[in-house]
Amino acid sequence: MRMYDLIEKKKRGEELAEPEIQFMVGGYVRDEIPDYQMAAMLMAICFQGMTPRETAWMTLAMEHSGEMVDLSPLAGCKVDKHSTGGVGDKTTLVVAPIAAACGAVVAKMSGRGLGHTGGTIDKLEAIPGFRTSLGREEFFQVVKETGLSIIGQTGNLVPADKKLYALRDVTATVDCVPLIASSIMSKKLAAGSDAILLDVKTGSGAFMKGTEEAAELARQMVDIGIAAGRKVAALITEMDVPLGHMVGNALEVQEAVAVLKGEGPDDLTDVCLSLAAEMLVLCGRAKREEARTLARQAVADGSALARLKAMVKAQGGEPEALERLGGLPQAACRREVPAPETGYITAMDAEQIGLASVLLGAGRSRKEDALDYGAGVELCRKTGEAVEKGEVLAVLYAGDPALFPEAEQKLLSAYSFGAQKPEMKKHVLARVDETGVTWL
Amino acid sequence: MRMYDLIEKKKRGEELAEPEIQFMVGGYVRDEIPDYQMAAMLMAICFQGMTPRETAWMTLAMEHSGEMVDLSPLAGCKVDKHSTGGVGDKTTLVVAPIAAACGAVVAKMSGRGLGHTGGTIDKLEAIPGFRTSLGREEFFQVVKETGLSIIGQTGNLVPADKKLYALRDVTATVDCVPLIASSIMSKKLAAGSDAILLDVKTGSGAFMKGTEEAAELARQMVDIGIAAGRKVAALITEMDVPLGHMVGNALEVQEAVAVLKGEGPDDLTDVCLSLAAEMLVLCGRAKREEARTLARQAVADGSALARLKAMVKAQGGEPEALERLGGLPQAACRREVPAPETGYITAMDAEQIGLASVLLGAGRSRKEDALDYGAGVELCRKTGEAVEKGEVLAVLYAGDPALFPEAEQKLLSAYSFGAQKPEMKKHVLARVDETGVTWL
Repeated sequence: MRMYDLIEKKKRGEELAEPEIQFMVGGYVRDEIPDYQMAAMLMAICFQGMTPRETAWMTLAMEHSGEMVDLSPLAGCKVDKHSTGGVGDKTTLVVAPIAAACGAVVAKMSGRGLGHTGGTIDKLEAIPGFRTSLGREEFFQVVKETGLSIIGQTGNLVPADKKLYALRDVTATVDCVPLIASSIMSKKLAAGSDAILLDVKTGSGAFMKGTEEAAELARQMVDIGIAAGRKVAALITEMDVPLGHMVGNALEVQEAVAVLKGEGPDDLTDVCLSLAAEMLVLCGRAKREEARTLARQAVADGSALARLKAMVKAQGGEPEALERLGGLPQAACRREVPAPETGYITAMDAEQIGLASVLLGAGRSRKEDALDYGAGVELCRKTGEAVEKGEVLAVLYAGDPALFPEAEQKLLSAYSFGAQKPEMKKHVLARVDETGVTWL
Repeated sequence: MRMYDLIEKKKRGEELAEPEIQFMVGGYVRDEIPDYQMAAMLMAICFQGMTPRETAWMTLAMEHSGEMVDLSPLAGCKVDKHSTGGVGDKTTLVVAPIAAACGAVVAKMSGRGLGHTGGTIDKLEAIPGFRTSLGREEFFQVVKETGLSIIGQTGNLVPADKKLYALRDVTATVDCVPLIASSIMSKKLAAGSDAILLDVKTGSGAFMKGTEEAAELARQMVDIGIAAGRKVAALITEMDVPLGHMVGNALEVQEAVAVLKGEGPDDLTDVCLSLAAEMLVLCGRAKREEARTLARQAVADGSALARLKAMVKAQGGEPEALERLGGLPQAACRREVPAPETGYITAMDAEQIGLASVLLGAGRSRKEDALDYGAGVELCRKTGEAVEKGEVLAVLYAGDPALFPEAEQKLLSAYSFGAQKPEMKKHVLARVDETGVTWL
């Protein structure tokens, strides 16, 4: 078998066979296939696409390219959740404890933020003492004790994706749905959970700007998961506007705790309850019609918050810090941003707001950048709300006031104002499962 | 400027600007742009194509990537000729002397054979003593004395093409018309002639199997040449069947001499006169209606053959060897191939015949292979002729009889027989010049 012939075949629009895809992925990981041949193949895939079978074969070949997590020693249905990345997306911190409180098992690896989107591991590390790097034994022990544990990615999981993603990133082959789907799903499959809920974001702050494109990605990922014998579903959720009011690591932990106390913002609470309910359905812990009620109860009776605290304690953090004033890192400096005009906020560009937060120190432009856990943005007014000129639109938090002017400019560039109250989209737009796409 | 953005732009189907193409070609030659990015770009070009302007800019950027030959010290119109490669194509050995005899100046670099097609330099080197490697001074001196000189490629001409071609060859991006056109034309432009005649072969033995595709390549190359300020035209010639009866280096020199003596096979003579006439038209040495007559006269009066002999002598060869029996290398062994059945030859696969010749030692499978100048195939019967079973179809020549069985098998696989005399195509199918494609 020669990679040349496989490139030629894909270029002609023919379907690659499973052994051909295994040869390609395996050979690339073992450095037997050079970058330039894989680059040509990736570009040919961008133009010719992949059939559902090809995408599934590719994902499985990638999953098996390195270590795979075996969660079978843990009893119960292990459920994972993945977000395609948004601004202010702290849902994992809310839904994992809710799912655990309702009897699902969450033994989860999460990632760090890069670019305008945040990462769950960064948020958890804002909690003083919290350790995201646990050995296998300790990880399992925490799950057994508390029903959930969230750690950083360990081991040599899916090396094929690391290598392919680095190549796609420099060859303009990132925005190709089957390549995105196989990248995400190979990691989720290798992480070992029985059930996987995908939160596919769409809108200005999402990687997938268009709803149809997001639905296609969700459909392909669900198909892959089902082909791999897992229980998989996806929700397509709105990311034109940042989720909740807080963007920044410690700020988002605070807001997640507020949701678990029943005091969170409506949009965030709604999305979290929907996600948690789907996780319970996937795990067979509830029927769809009762799942949301169960999730809501876990918030109302405090059992979900108790789960989060138990995990924080088990992983070395101070649970009281979650609720104590000043218990979490706070930025040294604060600046209020006044509304530049009177009217309705008609749109917010979530990506620009994410980038403003990065400028303040809450995120990374490059992998090696250090984070300021207290930094970020508090969005006092959001799309659909009326403001008076001069009223506080947002508050910026940073360690150094020199960071404010550029971030303020970036933040303000994200807002559009108008005389008419804009029509608001639903927070959860569709559910995608083995039956297809259901628009809600 | 970033190569990433140029890949993205081409992927979206947008036209690259001239400075962008210069950045890309220059950066690639200087090793500033990695192979994997160029591979992605080449594949995107295969799918999106290039506009005529892009192709011209690409060609000029490639032409200027290394040394360029300055033929201006030579008086008169310097005319070059390029064949896209065929089997039995010894036309340069015929048309260059004819053009020189009619007052055009041929100061030409030619290539070696690779794969199933031969190369003019290999054929010339079959002449005992002939030197294809001359310094600039000697090259010019031979041209001044004889009106023509043909040498191997010297200097660092078009390094961009060498590097790009090597990459295309391993990334399945060879068969893309604008890339082929820019590859050929960058070398022809850098070789410095005022006028360039392109012989674009079409058919089973050609790189371009289809006539329409050949016409498109011809059209693009002519456009590039005109954009570069040269006089350029193309003939589309038939290569379903090998040209003439001889395939192999010394055998082809013999046959070229026969044409120059007015004793050559009809198909080869016809194509050579057409090519030579076009060269004279391009150089302003004749009007189209009289050019063919002029070319024919140069054969009839022996002046063209005298030019070939003068060049052979000036480049160290023995002119008498061209006509003396046994003056050229002869193969030690000879095998007649009998016709396997009675009937008309309805088709011959020229590529398979070229490969049979390579198996006998007349060509190279790899660049480093040595040649047997006497080896090759004599085609006694060609498409359209009737044969009796057992009659001699072809004669194989090789240095070792052990080479015969595989070559014979390959050769016979090239023939189709039938009861009906097939319809024959014209030898010259079309002329392409600044006025477009004229089907003949």
